[in-house]
Parts: sequence; structure tokens; C-alpha cells
Amino acid sequence: MPARRTIGVDLGGTKLLAGAVDQALGVHHRAQRTVTGLDQRALLDVAVDVVAEVRASAGAEVAAVGFGLPCLIDRRTGIALMGINTPLADIAFADVMTERLGLPVFVENDGNAAAIAEHRAGAARGVSEAVILTIGTGIGGGLILRGEPYLGAIGAAAELGHIVIDYHGPKCQGNCPNHGCVEVYASGTALAVEARRLAAELPDSGLAQAQRAGRELAGPLITELAHDGDAAATEAISLIGSRLGIAMASLVNIFNPQVIVIGGGVIAAGELLLAPARAAVTERTLAAVHADLRIVPARFGVEAGMIGAAAIAFDGLEAADR
Amino acid sequence: MPARRTIGVDLGGTKLLAGAVDQALGVHHRAQRTVTGLDQRALLDVAVDVVAEVRASAGAEVAAVGFGLPCLIDRRTGIALMGINTPLADIAFADVMTERLGLPVFVENDGNAAAIAEHRAGAARGVSEAVILTIGTGIGGGLILRGEPYLGAIGAAAELGHIVIDYHGPKCQGNCPNHGCVEVYASGTALAVEARRLAAELPDSGLAQAQRAGRELAGPLITELAHDGDAAATEAISLIGSRLGIAMASLVNIFNPQVIVIGGGVIAAGELLLAPARAAVTERTLAAVHADLRIVPARFGVEAGMIGAAAIAFDGLEAADR
Repeated sequence: MPARRTIGVDLGGTKLLAGAVDQALGVHHRAQRTVTGLDQRALLDVAVDVVAEVRASAGAEVAAVGFGLPCLIDRRTGIALMGINTPLADIAFADVMTERLGLPVFVENDGNAAAIAEHRAGAARGVSEAVILTIGTGIGGGLILRGEPYLGAIGAAAELGHIVIDYHGPKCQGNCPNHGCVEVYASGTALAVEARRLAAELPDSGLAQAQRAGRELAGPLITELAHDGDAAATEAISLIGSRLGIAMASLVNIFNPQVIVIGGGVIAAGELLLAPARAAVTERTLAAVHADLRIVPARFGVEAGMIGAAAIAFDGLEAADR
Repeated sequence: MPARRTIGVDLGGTKLLAGAVDQALGVHHRAQRTVTGLDQRALLDVAVDVVAEVRASAGAEVAAVGFGLPCLIDRRTGIALMGINTPLADIAFADVMTERLGLPVFVENDGNAAAIAEHRAGAARGVSEAVILTIGTGIGGGLILRGEPYLGAIGAAAELGHIVIDYHGPKCQGNCPNHGCVEVYASGTALAVEARRLAAELPDSGLAQAQRAGRELAGPLITELAHDGDAAATEAISLIGSRLGIAMASLVNIFNPQVIVIGGGVIAAGELLLAPARAAVTERTLAAVHADLRIVPARFGVEAGMIGAAAIAFDGLEAADR
């Protein structure tokens, strides 16, 4: 019988990804749900349902479930306080789900979960100072400092999407009261906004043609068109990449990291996103701090948060065994 | 005979402060020099001279000298690589000064030095997560994370003055290639720029009268006029405070700190600077992360960097004794 597995669940603003994961962080069964527009109650029901599906196909005993939540989590109380792009608020998520699932449940912020996965077995492996950004509906963040996840005073650190890049800028997304955060300029949501603008300005572009054909100008389609060579789609991604690079320049001056790892759905754009981001960092920071810096895609891509959530569940089990 | 002392030297963009300091971080003799416009050679001569002066009046044996430098310092080589507002570049500062002074010399970034002083015996005492900003010619930074100074991959972290708050903004100061850093909006240099603008706009203001009387509209005078109730001077300081608050909001989202400590010459403005900064943080961040946050002046005020430099010299001696 194979060794026990955990289920990792990454609960994004648009999608929920779940998978059965082994201790070496290999993924054995995957499931996905769309969660746009759900309220908290419906979201919990979907989470219970997807865990049941993955558990049934896990191919081994499932010992625990880890959730990556797009929320501030107060580590003193275990309460998921609130998130920018999620209906979750003031809920003792681990307790509630432990009861509903009949399995030990562990929670972590989704950006931190992605950071943990990339640090253990991905693009930040062997590195002591790493910054992780996950670009999806919003922008999540995770920090590995002196070789360990950095959580801050109550566990609410690394909200790296909420770094201001233009203080005169528009109101940020969802519950964030700030203005001009990088999230409002460079998330997947912002990519779709720029793509719609370019489609209107350039009626001959692939973006405009796709829109006229009734297709939704969201991240996956924009990325597909850009990879196919559409100049407008490429420009939309490049614009997002340069803006990400501006926030990265601040992060480089703050952390002097060895690596910046980019995950989340938008990293499907690969070098089309990363090259302009690197150019902005090179232009805006001193050579001494960017000379040895790597800016790279997450090894686990869009699955980094899910795999990290599973890793946290293994950690939780180990801590309980001691 | 009193216990041995160290000399701390804080080398700012405009002024050099030095003092003989005891192990409890009490200051026993102070000296000051203006260093504006000096080249590297002249700056080293001034540093040698000021150390000799303080040493002669220290009232006890001086065992070592610590320097807080406004520079990136590569910890792998000990080289002071470059700074934004200083002529120091590519110099093995500790080695050079050890030879010239005939005393052990230790160096640290000036913002880190201020952070160390405030964490050991000042406004961040007993706290594990603290952000320190020093507002002078430029804006320096220091980080205490999990109870220890955070230095980054090569020792160049915590350049907190070089967080972008408006990416369309003007070129930053000195050697910084970035645009729209908080340093260009909220340093002592920026305060003087705003005061001159307000003096021109408001010819009846105390600022304008002082300028007509031939006085230089720099930090100390602006602060004095504001404390005396001049509305224009108060407005200049308030503007700088709100802009600082914007960068602080990003830092709060990044670090979820327990305390933000403000030092450097401009903190002489006290609550006139801090109240608008706090208001911006409250407006721009989630209640959960700012609820327990303190934003306070450095206990050691403008001397935090100097005292921290002396503390580093004691640390260096201790490490050598082991």
C-alpha cells in the first residue's frame, strides 16, 4: 500500500484547485472548480465536495487536508479574517472544515503556501532569501527570509499585491481600501482590462477578432493569442509585466533577494511576462543588488499554492505526531 | 577607571554625527561636522578628525569605532559599494579606517545601525517585527524581523527609501536610477522643496518671511516655524508625513509589523509629521493589520544611527574576543 497522502486545496478568487499529493510533493489526482460569485456557505460546500472527489481517487490513504486561502489569517486565533477577492470572513476555517471533512485540516495564506512549495522543491530550492508573487484574479505574495516563511506579527505579512506603485491611482480591488496597488495594475484582472482596451483601439488585432467571435478576453485566451504572435495580446502582457517589474524593483530594494518566483495563472505567459519585468528591475535598481538576482517562473506554475497547501498538511501531521 | 567605550559615527548625506558611547548605550561626548559637497578623500579626513576629537574627550578608554554608512555594503567582501547621497564608492571602509585610526573599525548601513539601536534600547525594544525609517537628506531604512536585523542576500536589504510610490514620478536622488521613490517625495530634501514652493505661493507666510530675511528653508527652520504655528510650514511637514504614510502602508502589507519607528533629522517635527502618516496608514490598510500597529518617533531621535554604530562596535569586539 502506498504511503499516506494529503490533499492540497488552493482557493483562488476565480478557481479552486485540489490535488492528492505525496510526501515528495508529487501530484496524483487533480480536481478543479469555478468559484466566481459564490458566497461563503456555497464556497465551503464546493470545498467539501472537491475534497470528497479527490479523496475517492487519491490511490492511497488521505491523512489530512491543507488549504491555501486568499485571506489574512490571524495566527493567534486561527481565524481567517478576510480576503481581498474572496467571501471568506471571520471564520475558524480549519475547525469548521475538520468537522465537515472528518480529517485534520490545516490552513495557510495562499501566497505563503506557494512560497513553501517553491522553496521546498521548486524554483526557490536551496535559496535563503526568496520573494514569491502569484498573479491571478489578484496578486498574492509569499516570503522566504533566512530560509523560512515570513509571517509577520499576527501572520498577515507578505500581502505583496498591496504595494502601492501609483498613489494617485485607482481604488484597489475588493476589500482593499488602498489606491494604486500593484494588484490593480498587474493582476489577471488588470490584464483582461488592458486586453479589452487594446481590442477596442485595434479592431484588426487578434484580441478584437476573438472578442467579436464572442470569446471572453481573460488570461488564458490572451496568453494563447500572444503565444500565437498577436501583437495586441503581446502588448497587454508586456504592459502587465513592466508594471510587475516596478513593484519588483521596490521588493529588490527592500529584501535584496536571491530569487523572485512568479506563479499563478498569468505565468502561463512565461517570458512574454517575465522579460519586461526583468527589464524594469534592471532599469530601476542598482547593479549591485540585481546582478545576481534571478526572476523565474514557479516550477509548479499554477499548482504551487495547491502543492504548498498539501505540504502544510504534512507539516501539521508531523507536528501533531511529536 | 570607567569601563571601555566605543565611538559611533553616523555619516549622513549632509551631517556627520559622532559620540563616545558606553555599553548601556549612554552617550558621553558628541561631535558634529557638515559634510555636504565633500569628495571621498575629504570625507575620510573629516571622519578621522572627528574620531580623534571624540576620543580625546571620551573620558575612558576607546576600544573600537563603529560607522553607520549611507551605503550598500557587500557583506561577502566588506566593501562599501555605493550610496545614493554619498561620495563613498567601492571602498574597503573598515580596513582603510582601521589603518588610519589604529583602532578596530566596524561598519554597517546607517539605517540598519539605527534599527539596531532602537531595537536594543529604544522604541522597538522587546518587539520582534519592526520597520525603521530615518528621514534626512535621503530616507534610510532598517528591518528587525523575527527579532534580528534583516540584511538580505549580500547585505543590501532595507533600502526602504527606494520603494516606488508613483512610478510616473520624477527621477530619484543621487545614484538611484529609479523614478518616484518615496525618498524623492518625503525626505528632508523634499521637505525643503515643498517649503520653497509654499513660500512662493504664500508670501505672507512665516516660510516666505523667513526666506526674505535670507534664512535657508531647510528642515530645522521649517520645523521651528511649524512648531511656532506657521500654517505653511505645518502644511509642508504634513504633506511629507502623508507621503511617508503611503510608503508605510506598503510596508505594513509587506511585513505586518508591530511598530514603525521614525528617526533622522526630520523627526524633530514629531506629531506634525507622524499624525498625517498614521492617517494615511489607517486609510490605506485593513483594520486587522493596523489595529495593533504603533507608529512612533525614534527614542534616540537623530542620534539613533550614531548610537547603533557604537553598538555594532561593541558587537564586533565581543565577536573578536570569542
